[in-house]
Amino acid sequence: MSVNITKLKNGLTVVTDSMPHLESAALGVWIKSGSRNETQDQHGIAHLLEHMAFKGTKNRTALQIAEEIENVGGELNAATSIETTAYYARVLKPEVGHAADILYDILANSTFDENELTREKHVILQEIGASLDSPDDLVFDNFQSAAFTGSQPIGRPILGTPDTVEGFSTNQIREYLDAHYHGPNMVLSAAGAVDHDALVKQAEGTYSNFANTITQDASPATYTGGEAILEDDFQEAQVVLGFEGRAYHVKDFYASQLLATILGGGMSSRLFQEVREKHGLCYSISSFHWGFSDSGVFGIHAATGPEDLQELISLILKELQRSSEDIIQEELDRARAQIRSGLLMSMESPAARAGQIARQILLFGRPIPNDELMERLDALSVERVRDLAGRIFHESTPTLAAIGPVKDIPRLSDIKQSLGIKQSLAAE
Amino acid sequence: MSVNITKLKNGLTVVTDSMPHLESAALGVWIKSGSRNETQDQHGIAHLLEHMAFKGTKNRTALQIAEEIENVGGELNAATSIETTAYYARVLKPEVGHAADILYDILANSTFDENELTREKHVILQEIGASLDSPDDLVFDNFQSAAFTGSQPIGRPILGTPDTVEGFSTNQIREYLDAHYHGPNMVLSAAGAVDHDALVKQAEGTYSNFANTITQDASPATYTGGEAILEDDFQEAQVVLGFEGRAYHVKDFYASQLLATILGGGMSSRLFQEVREKHGLCYSISSFHWGFSDSGVFGIHAATGPEDLQELISLILKELQRSSEDIIQEELDRARAQIRSGLLMSMESPAARAGQIARQILLFGRPIPNDELMERLDALSVERVRDLAGRIFHESTPTLAAIGPVKDIPRLSDIKQSLGIKQSLAAE
Repeated sequence: MSVNITKLKNGLTVVTDSMPHLESAALGVWIKSGSRNETQDQHGIAHLLEHMAFKGTKNRTALQIAEEIENVGGELNAATSIETTAYYARVLKPEVGHAADILYDILANSTFDENELTREKHVILQEIGASLDSPDDLVFDNFQSAAFTGSQPIGRPILGTPDTVEGFSTNQIREYLDAHYHGPNMVLSAAGAVDHDALVKQAEGTYSNFANTITQDASPATYTGGEAILEDDFQEAQVVLGFEGRAYHVKDFYASQLLATILGGGMSSRLFQEVREKHGLCYSISSFHWGFSDSGVFGIHAATGPEDLQELISLILKELQRSSEDIIQEELDRARAQIRSGLLMSMESPAARAGQIARQILLFGRPIPNDELMERLDALSVERVRDLAGRIFHESTPTLAAIGPVKDIPRLSDIKQSLGIKQSLAAE
Repeated sequence: MSVNITKLKNGLTVVTDSMPHLESAALGVWIKSGSRNETQDQHGIAHLLEHMAFKGTKNRTALQIAEEIENVGGELNAATSIETTAYYARVLKPEVGHAADILYDILANSTFDENELTREKHVILQEIGASLDSPDDLVFDNFQSAAFTGSQPIGRPILGTPDTVEGFSTNQIREYLDAHYHGPNMVLSAAGAVDHDALVKQAEGTYSNFANTITQDASPATYTGGEAILEDDFQEAQVVLGFEGRAYHVKDFYASQLLATILGGGMSSRLFQEVREKHGLCYSISSFHWGFSDSGVFGIHAATGPEDLQELISLILKELQRSSEDIIQEELDRARAQIRSGLLMSMESPAARAGQIARQILLFGRPIPNDELMERLDALSVERVRDLAGRIFHESTPTLAAIGPVKDIPRLSDIKQSLGIKQSLAAE
């Protein structure tokens, strides 16, 4: 790896991965702050701030921001997730410094104009409306809420609700920014046709202005499990069935990633073979493991017609049961090969690289070399993965989210019974 | 460009773009045959064949196909579009030959087992159901049908309908394959860590078996324009408004691409600025130009709540009017810079490269160097683009597709009147 890291005096990390054969670069600022860092009365403000950052600064109007980057063929975008927020650009080599300057400007000097806020709230209402019209997105929002009940910020939809979004003032946006966009909490990451020393020099003149303040951690998350069943007039039933997963730092994190790949990580995975190939019940079925800093969720997503819903759930449960008993070495080896190629291929994409390194620095304090990741995966045995499956699928209250023609879906209590989970582990 | 081309004796083209700094490669077979090549009683069969190709060959079961590629960390996928079908793989360097062998096997030796067909039909029914649940997908299917009325194959949904899919036999699938998967109609394209001579040598031993037969062209497409308004219980109204576009080979093709970028190709584009930034009416708005071999469509896509629908249409129409009058040099230069960086960045992605070169060979008979593409764009003047806008937006019957709370949407006749299009140009 050709990764270079410099920490500025204010705690902000500048990291580059130079890929000298490229003509373009990806760069961005990643902030360790997302929807779960909001307080109860800030629901949706992390995402609203991410939108408002493009609405004009002391130095540039919103139109100037857009034109400056697009005049040179670049692209600017941003994304808010549960634990991080990212602002990033794709540009050709000569424009890296220019893009870094624009990114700094929108994060440090935004003016948050009142009229812009009024219009942008309306834009976000349309974004919320579109997410409500997408059952395959909405089922994941509902899944997350049911996995982390009790109005925990980690369980709330990132976009907020029409009511919360409507209520925010420019002062509240500024307060959220001032409380979270701190040097030690931020990484300026660039990959591709980039020069580390030049970027550091530039960042010392500007990015060093972010406050050198330690940010308060989000309140701890408590996985509860639970049920979110929404009958609606769609063709397909969207289903996400899940369990408590593992935090990034936990020993079982890597085994959980392997287990997700073995169960639903490709065409040869157990769920794809059993549910789609042998029974033809779904167009797509997959499993996932999402780690957070202090918790995680493990889930299976599938969609099917109402007549096949019972059989779908029953086949999934059978596969979960089996996985603690008969995962074999060949499957483990295949999952490792899939993860290894995924890592190598993402090394070849500047956008994937810049994001991966930035998130590793925010979450682990340093970039994790691929070799180290692979060593951790190689150290895991079949017994260890089977054992983990036994614990994940049998020791926590499941989470069941479903949308569509789901009148006849088995309920959480049936699923618990089928998996032999004690009914007293209820959280509904 | 490091592009190498060899034509096999049966007319099949092998093309590689070697990117020696990479550890991985993308490769695939592109066939100049898609949904518009179906006859009236074959609606959906191109896509069904694409699914059935993974269901087992003389040499491999469906499971073996999946396992062989995933055991080495590779991925295999396929896609059917209106004019082409593609089967492709992403693998690490040592597996290029192996992947090429699997791709050959599934296209030349598939057995089309009856039981597999029964199951796969059910899978496709789920896929159709999911597309009906996605208003932002469905509106494009309806748009295409309204643009090309009269049951023209180019206007039909690629997936087929539940009825047509249910009706197909294995013989009909084999017939479609035998009629279209011919050497002169196929390109084996690979980019990344690939060796041209080795791939050609391998292809001479296998891919040269495809028939050296000229394939019958699809029947000509006739753009008609028309209306497809579907009231439904969604939050957002999905709208696509369009016009007759330009075929690939036509002089105005490149000017149409530039016009689409100027109108709705980024944050600084006219529609984004006017509709989202100044009026806050949409989360996303964009314009597109799709060329086909003998026709094309130019369109604008946006989504908004029912209360903003009239204003949205009226703002879009105003921008279409204006574009024939006041596009300026700065906008033209920016659109060119955006297209140029897009080309350069896609050069850095093996998957994008392999697909781009394959499609250019199928459509133009040769890969088009980026410099040549840019020269064509550079030759276009502001006057030329304005003139084209005047013709596109005023000389064809518009196409209007909308889904959701669209009771109050202006009708096609209102739109024609507003654009000053003669009512006799009706096609409803």
